[in-house]
Amino acid sequence: MENPNGFFPPDRVINAGKSQHNEDQACCEVVFVERRPSPRGHLPCRDGSREPDRVRAWWEAAPLTSVTVGFYFHYWALFDGHAGSGAAVMASKRLHLHICEQLRDLVDILQDPSPPPICLQHDAELSQAEDSREVPSDALPRFHLEKAVSHESLVIGAIENAFKHMDEQIEQERVSQHISGGCCALAAVYLMGKFYVANAGDSRAIIIRNGEIIPMSREFTPETERQRLQFLAFLRPELLGKEFTHLEFPRRIQPKELGKKMLYRDQSMNGWAYKKIEEDDLKFPLIYGEGKKARVMATIGVTRGLGDHDLKVFSSNIHIKPFLSCFPEVRVYDLTQYEHCPDDVLVLGTDGLWDVTNDKEVASVVMEVLTSYEPNDPCRYTMVAQELVVRSRGVLKERGWRLPNDKLGSGDDISVFVIPLGGPGNYM
Amino acid sequence: MENPNGFFPPDRVINAGKSQHNEDQACCEVVFVERRPSPRGHLPCRDGSREPDRVRAWWEAAPLTSVTVGFYFHYWALFDGHAGSGAAVMASKRLHLHICEQLRDLVDILQDPSPPPICLQHDAELSQAEDSREVPSDALPRFHLEKAVSHESLVIGAIENAFKHMDEQIEQERVSQHISGGCCALAAVYLMGKFYVANAGDSRAIIIRNGEIIPMSREFTPETERQRLQFLAFLRPELLGKEFTHLEFPRRIQPKELGKKMLYRDQSMNGWAYKKIEEDDLKFPLIYGEGKKARVMATIGVTRGLGDHDLKVFSSNIHIKPFLSCFPEVRVYDLTQYEHCPDDVLVLGTDGLWDVTNDKEVASVVMEVLTSYEPNDPCRYTMVAQELVVRSRGVLKERGWRLPNDKLGSGDDISVFVIPLGGPGNYM
Repeated sequence: MENPNGFFPPDRVINAGKSQHNEDQACCEVVFVERRPSPRGHLPCRDGSREPDRVRAWWEAAPLTSVTVGFYFHYWALFDGHAGSGAAVMASKRLHLHICEQLRDLVDILQDPSPPPICLQHDAELSQAEDSREVPSDALPRFHLEKAVSHESLVIGAIENAFKHMDEQIEQERVSQHISGGCCALAAVYLMGKFYVANAGDSRAIIIRNGEIIPMSREFTPETERQRLQFLAFLRPELLGKEFTHLEFPRRIQPKELGKKMLYRDQSMNGWAYKKIEEDDLKFPLIYGEGKKARVMATIGVTRGLGDHDLKVFSSNIHIKPFLSCFPEVRVYDLTQYEHCPDDVLVLGTDGLWDVTNDKEVASVVMEVLTSYEPNDPCRYTMVAQELVVRSRGVLKERGWRLPNDKLGSGDDISVFVIPLGGPGNYM
Repeated sequence: MENPNGFFPPDRVINAGKSQHNEDQACCEVVFVERRPSPRGHLPCRDGSREPDRVRAWWEAAPLTSVTVGFYFHYWALFDGHAGSGAAVMASKRLHLHICEQLRDLVDILQDPSPPPICLQHDAELSQAEDSREVPSDALPRFHLEKAVSHESLVIGAIENAFKHMDEQIEQERVSQHISGGCCALAAVYLMGKFYVANAGDSRAIIIRNGEIIPMSREFTPETERQRLQFLAFLRPELLGKEFTHLEFPRRIQPKELGKKMLYRDQSMNGWAYKKIEEDDLKFPLIYGEGKKARVMATIGVTRGLGDHDLKVFSSNIHIKPFLSCFPEVRVYDLTQYEHCPDDVLVLGTDGLWDVTNDKEVASVVMEVLTSYEPNDPCRYTMVAQELVVRSRGVLKERGWRLPNDKLGSGDDISVFVIPLGGPGNYM
């Protein structure tokens, strides 16, 4: 898809790592969201109010023609596949289209500064919300309780539902399209002055602004989502197939330890307490292992993402999918609230990066590389991404890929986006 | 219970408000946790290593005798009752005893600096953990995966389970003891250099240190716990009794709006999206209302606490209790990590305080009152508590209790603890 501003967004993705087949996938697009055609035809464009002489930043929407009503969003996404690259490949080709589809209903609503309508009068005219706002009627009782819903929360809802529809599409087409495995998904949507960073899995996004690190995501793993998973297993024990227990123990229990007291925690606890070991506690724990080795039912180390519809516990008929959520957590960053310099960036990376390079080290590489290039050199962000990947992979030595401290390199696939927040629009 | 240090902790509780019968209850105790007697009798006291000449702060454990092994904890708690004061009264008399009971198993473990044992060899000798640590045997396979569990997380687990046992006791004795209603519970436990602040409900605790505000709790309400409640209702729709829907809408839907599109969100969403209104959506929403008016099934405005075992939706047979959690969130503050001055305090308050006086205003009253008294005046903390209550209640005018800005005073019962962190031990 061509960038209406005439240049490609200054960000890059670089894949590296030990695996022969890279299961990471990436996508970067500028997407036009066209208002859904209504039975009464298009309304005239409302874009004439734009100041004609102001220099537009690269991330601002291009002027619209008088016949097509809509807006652009910028989009970057990383998909970290597992058990095959099928889900990651499909999601990289489609997720932005699902986001576009969800936003189509909101074209007029998002461009109208008044609060979004709670209820739309005519289903077929959803896209012409300004015509269909509720008109309080004396015949209707007045509702004193009415929650205010922001434009921002409609975009969040649209992205959340886009992830759900993407997951459903993978489910429906996985047999005919031979889609294997699943993937973590991390997507950044730039729309109307705000970045929406949506994360489902263990990838990570941070903003580096004036050297300060601002986390833009959190990881969803068996450890961070323990209580959600235990709660589900507690309410639906049949999902555990009589082979697992929803309780967590600090280690496996030996049958000979029956009757002794062992530390445990359940879905309501954050601390640990002792309980007498019973027969049922000898089952394998739903959540087991620590850090990168933590697994759900000894199978998977991430608890959110797309795909995995056929994933089962090894040599059993126990499905993993009910425990996985395809819903992202969406964080919002308002670009208009701060002054940004060309060294301020949003970094997206798969876990291959973050496993060996922490936030501070990434920020330090960003500063180091950016200051070694001229501020208007278009290569400088690419060089940051490349440097991050190369450092995290390490150097091939006799005993494998090694980091400068001689520790093993990531070993995992590594993908990175480095997105400038100051933007070339500010200095072109 | 007498304070072994010979003086009563310098904190006060003051109740105020419009209601004739104050449903707030409070408790302040110094509790001795005695090691559970073992079949082999008491072990010798391990307290001889204490430096005899060092001045002890008020919150430090008193020396133990050679025959009784255990430790002291300091305890403050507020119970904000609803639908009667029965649960609050009972909890104020018993919760610290449940905490004591849970800690009895940990007397030796908490006093031993080595990591807590994962498994105790002999059930009957739980209290003599130093004798019963696991001895790795060559006959046993080695476990590579073993989670480290901290002493702190054992105390958290003990407090969590104490709340559960307290709730079970209320359930068991509610008929014979005529215990009515339920209550929010906020408890602060001082033990071995750390404050453990446990909150179940909408009371609040903050620390004010050098003028800075450190939140020590969060509120549990239909709004903050929306996703937990919706997830439960989604998995167990029978709990809604065919009268409620787990979906949230920004306002009630009119039957005539069937087929139109309305904003909604479900258990997985943080944003809002439009959906076509169906017959099932006309049911009353599980979560409804905003802020202080938010309710679970139109009945209760807090989602954690003790009691409420008989609470039902008005004129129905639908129980509320399955949606309420009796588990607190426990936050830990390590007193030894900071230097504290006599003006640093932990403030506990029921919602009657926080509804009209925010954190900053509370901090400002604390500073204002404390600086108007001599640092060694034992009344100064009491005066802070009194001032907080009086300001939040307001002054009785013609049109009811009014705040200085002429807004209505809290109207609710108000209870406050002001606990010095520097402590008289530092200046006695």
